[in-house]
Amino acid sequence: MRERPIKVRELSAEPLVLKLGGSVITRKEKPLTANVRAITRLSREISSAKTAPLVVVHGGGSFGHPVAKRYAIKEGYKNNVSQVLGFAETHQAMVTLNKLVVDALIRQNIPAVAVSPFSCIVTKSGRIHIMMEDHLKKLLQMGFVPVLYGDTVLDSDFGFTILSGDQLLAYLAMRLNADRIIIGIDVDGLYTADPKTDSSARLVSHVTLKELKDMQLQIGAAKVTDVTGGMLGKIAELTPTLDKGITVLIVNAAKPKYVYKALKGEKVIGTLIEKG
Amino acid sequence: MRERPIKVRELSAEPLVLKLGGSVITRKEKPLTANVRAITRLSREISSAKTAPLVVVHGGGSFGHPVAKRYAIKEGYKNNVSQVLGFAETHQAMVTLNKLVVDALIRQNIPAVAVSPFSCIVTKSGRIHIMMEDHLKKLLQMGFVPVLYGDTVLDSDFGFTILSGDQLLAYLAMRLNADRIIIGIDVDGLYTADPKTDSSARLVSHVTLKELKDMQLQIGAAKVTDVTGGMLGKIAELTPTLDKGITVLIVNAAKPKYVYKALKGEKVIGTLIEKG
Repeated sequence: MRERPIKVRELSAEPLVLKLGGSVITRKEKPLTANVRAITRLSREISSAKTAPLVVVHGGGSFGHPVAKRYAIKEGYKNNVSQVLGFAETHQAMVTLNKLVVDALIRQNIPAVAVSPFSCIVTKSGRIHIMMEDHLKKLLQMGFVPVLYGDTVLDSDFGFTILSGDQLLAYLAMRLNADRIIIGIDVDGLYTADPKTDSSARLVSHVTLKELKDMQLQIGAAKVTDVTGGMLGKIAELTPTLDKGITVLIVNAAKPKYVYKALKGEKVIGTLIEKG
Repeated sequence: MRERPIKVRELSAEPLVLKLGGSVITRKEKPLTANVRAITRLSREISSAKTAPLVVVHGGGSFGHPVAKRYAIKEGYKNNVSQVLGFAETHQAMVTLNKLVVDALIRQNIPAVAVSPFSCIVTKSGRIHIMMEDHLKKLLQMGFVPVLYGDTVLDSDFGFTILSGDQLLAYLAMRLNADRIIIGIDVDGLYTADPKTDSSARLVSHVTLKELKDMQLQIGAAKVTDVTGGMLGKIAELTPTLDKGITVLIVNAAKPKYVYKALKGEKVIGTLIEKG
């Protein structure tokens, strides 16, 4: 008899959507290299937290980005055999990373199921256009933990393109009426300046969408580098979600127990973003 | 610059659908063990044949069946945490086998893309009910080789169930208006009796659907074992396909060059089934 780490939830429960950043679960500097230690630790944290319903979305890190870039997958189909093979390689790299994540979750007795965005999503000019989302609702009702990821997808205008994990995260949170979004990255959250170069930089522990928009403008005007590798883009994706009242908590998933505490709703260092 | 092993075909070309039997690509007697040598050899044969458009469907063999059976996945969802975890394990086992197949194909410069049946198909009482098939048509038009497989799927009546590679094969051949179906198994084709126990058994090299139905009845009445491990069930799945005029060629994929010859349309030992 197996342990029963999660219980089958009522149909009405609102899911929590957890993003595991590519920078946390892969080794950025090494192509196609997973951070197996981090993946195992995070799987244990997710298992201990016993959060349900839960959807996991992960990024590509050193699996998805280098190959996708080399073949300009995001720019669309160019009717070129090399690029078609490059698309296949990129998709397969993401399948490979996803397999490592799902394997680790299953080893912790989490009923994680790989849902391939490539297989069930079509974008239009880069935005999610068709998705079998009832599928996900049913999976959650039955007690599964669907695991999705940024992926190569077919696009009705471009032929194909890249769907970012962040767009997917925001889309799922909206459509599944998520309770909260937790984003695990490799820094502590949003800072007022780049903490690596500016000693006056401080972590923003709580911010409203309105404040954030003003901050973005300031950051834009000052041409400050986006220290979190596209965090502003991520937040732009999350604007409709925040508008709907779904809070976003950014935590450092590279540090032990942060994701666990975030899942449990315990006090944790990070940045909480609310509608305001 | 890469080689160009396949060319992007006209949109109108009718695809060939190739089934790689689970008994060929896995080691039947060893759970979760792939026959890597066979997978590599078959990938080379598929690459050399340069068949396009091509769809590959593979079975589960020792990856899918044992786990699925242990948790009675085919019988449907029982609202039981152990079974939910068993479903997750079964799906992941199939993802694992599929990854080995797609990796091998990509290594031979075939733009193979894993299409997850679990992610894009819903069955109703065990029969395919919803599938994003336009997806596959677009993939073929762009020059990809979609690779699908027997998988765990959601079912609108049973909650979930198992979709056999054979049902999927027949469905795809019908919907994609296939030119021909090639089924690679671990025997030479259909026999008049069990060749292992009956020395009078002879290989049937050509048979019509009508003859086959009569033979089936005879075999049924004589209670002869189905030597090919469910071949009669496979053929029942293929009846509508044969009725539509799509020929089925059964060859021994465990023997080198048989699948290659079948793909090229060369003379090969096997059983050709036609409408008649």
